[in-house]
Amino acid sequence: MSTTPKRVSLLGSTGSIGTQALDVVRAQPGRFQVTALSAQSNAELLIAQAREFRPAAVVIGDEAKYQQVREALANQPETEVLAGAAALTEVAARPDADVVLTAMVGYAGLLPTVAAIRAGKDIALANKETLVVAGQLITGLVQEHGVQLLPVDSEHSAIFQCLVGEEQNPIEKIILTASGGPFRGRTREQLAQVTKAQALKHPNWDMGAKITIDSASLMNKGLEVIEAKWLFNLRDEQIDVVVHPQSIIHSLVQFEDGSLKAQLGLPDMKLPIQYALGYPQRLTNNFPRFSFLEYPQLTFEQPDTTAFRNLALAFEALKRGGNAACILNAANEIAVAAFLRDEIGFLEMSDVVESSLARVSYLATPSLDDYVLTDQETRRVARELIGTRV
Amino acid sequence: MSTTPKRVSLLGSTGSIGTQALDVVRAQPGRFQVTALSAQSNAELLIAQAREFRPAAVVIGDEAKYQQVREALANQPETEVLAGAAALTEVAARPDADVVLTAMVGYAGLLPTVAAIRAGKDIALANKETLVVAGQLITGLVQEHGVQLLPVDSEHSAIFQCLVGEEQNPIEKIILTASGGPFRGRTREQLAQVTKAQALKHPNWDMGAKITIDSASLMNKGLEVIEAKWLFNLRDEQIDVVVHPQSIIHSLVQFEDGSLKAQLGLPDMKLPIQYALGYPQRLTNNFPRFSFLEYPQLTFEQPDTTAFRNLALAFEALKRGGNAACILNAANEIAVAAFLRDEIGFLEMSDVVESSLARVSYLATPSLDDYVLTDQETRRVARELIGTRV
Repeated sequence: MSTTPKRVSLLGSTGSIGTQALDVVRAQPGRFQVTALSAQSNAELLIAQAREFRPAAVVIGDEAKYQQVREALANQPETEVLAGAAALTEVAARPDADVVLTAMVGYAGLLPTVAAIRAGKDIALANKETLVVAGQLITGLVQEHGVQLLPVDSEHSAIFQCLVGEEQNPIEKIILTASGGPFRGRTREQLAQVTKAQALKHPNWDMGAKITIDSASLMNKGLEVIEAKWLFNLRDEQIDVVVHPQSIIHSLVQFEDGSLKAQLGLPDMKLPIQYALGYPQRLTNNFPRFSFLEYPQLTFEQPDTTAFRNLALAFEALKRGGNAACILNAANEIAVAAFLRDEIGFLEMSDVVESSLARVSYLATPSLDDYVLTDQETRRVARELIGTRV
Repeated sequence: MSTTPKRVSLLGSTGSIGTQALDVVRAQPGRFQVTALSAQSNAELLIAQAREFRPAAVVIGDEAKYQQVREALANQPETEVLAGAAALTEVAARPDADVVLTAMVGYAGLLPTVAAIRAGKDIALANKETLVVAGQLITGLVQEHGVQLLPVDSEHSAIFQCLVGEEQNPIEKIILTASGGPFRGRTREQLAQVTKAQALKHPNWDMGAKITIDSASLMNKGLEVIEAKWLFNLRDEQIDVVVHPQSIIHSLVQFEDGSLKAQLGLPDMKLPIQYALGYPQRLTNNFPRFSFLEYPQLTFEQPDTTAFRNLALAFEALKRGGNAACILNAANEIAVAAFLRDEIGFLEMSDVVESSLARVSYLATPSLDDYVLTDQETRRVARELIGTRV
């Protein structure tokens, strides 16, 4: 290949998105060069990845594992080993990358992403919480620094792909598709009984634990609604959600002439990851192809926001604006962690979010510091709410 | 509106596409100016349209109706009245139009379209037979004269819309959707019994008689396959057809990364007509909007090319190249006319096409004159074949 490789900094390299991103890089020899890798705690995999891709920097979030990583890579002098959250933010801003793929989980993505944008990096955004928490601030920074925000979520990638070449044509609305998760069709009474093991079995997508629980509770779709608002500059009434259990149509855009465009394919995150990294070029690959013969029926239904209250709560936070979505997200992170520790039931996750939204102080135009404080206060409040239950 | 109106020459203004095109023009005041109108024989409607839109020229194909049109428009001196095929070709090339919408039926579209391209006009192509008959020649002329070929067929418009902004990304394949027509699911034995009245009832689309019969026999899809080959520069193995009875997904493109893009909407020809006339801008309108709640299931199946042989014949003509598609088209025009006069049965239409393909001399690289002669010879042969049956 004659083109210069695109230099990719991969934050969150040991999770589901991170490992699939490295599959994409591996399958396109000469196309990409990995300049940084980071992980929160999976030192073993991070070390193996560093040995294979030989980045200029690796960051292990958990400082207790710094020695282990450093010693394992002692015979690889081109790779600098760092640890901790501040190091991650520093590495995200380094000049040796063209694009930063943010694949960390949750709120932890915010500060490194801000640093990368300020350093003029294009962002391949897999960490939706960044936009959920601080969409107004992030989109302002993106404009100010003239960088690209390339969505990796399959739904937002679908919309982004449908908008290519349509710059002059306003969006009338978008339709985010949702698989409905493993509990589609269940009533509130039935949802009260579901277990963690059931919630962790997603019918179509193979993902990390946090996002799998969010998918089962429809909070993931709620976070995506907020993410879409910021990515595509929409009003809340321009965002529809439709349940599409086969997860083939990844999302749709409706233009002002009434025409809709959709992006489709098998549910495989490698496609949107590759699209974000290769944009605007689509790279040839041997991923399995979709065939209508294997999917003779595509079905669609309205989401049940009575049983799945998280989606309604997310729309409410979107309408309120300010720090409401930051509260929603922080409360949900605590609630999901508690559910995964069997401390609260499935429906109680929505209760924690709703009560947190009621208790934490609302700020109409928060600064970056305000978001950090809102996040901290919400986590305290949510933990308190959960503590009174167990 | 501050922009200069786009000047539209509308050839075939009294048919289904023509009248809907004028609906589009009427609904966008100040956006378009009609410079020419033409009709084969419907003088009354042509006169009414000329009185409303006051074009610089009207052409009535049937010369016997020239006096009628001229007298009716005697008090409208800005509108010149002409008659006959040569006049239509002359008007198609006049300098007062930016875009020529070719909405005539059948082979008659070829020469005026060639004249318009040679005069540097963009073509909004509703007359698919032009590309079917002489795709190689037309696409060569389009390149030579640097004009745009904007498809109006809903399927090709869908693909064209999906390709906007993807210029750097090769097509892996396209999937043309087909409603399957009124006889979807029937066997050859059942098809042998169907009547003209049944064939003229299309489940989704309201169109003229010729294209409605072609839709019932799947010849329309066959012609569209050939049209797509030339519009999008594809090999025959890059074109798939899938039956989609709801006619909501109008067609799809699959790129080399495996991603598919589709254009969707209610079956309404005004949308692709408006898109072709307004391109690259999508014009706001009040057409009814699609909703998944009204279409909770979209279904897909393989076309039955044993019962509907026309589709297989069209692929065969596409593979042969040269004047084969011109033979296919001419034989089909004669066969459809005979079916509409109750001279032959539904299945015999394919027989006439197949026998004509076998009998008319094959030319690998025909000139424009060769196409004209092939068309004439095929019509003679097809009439002879039908004559021996009745």
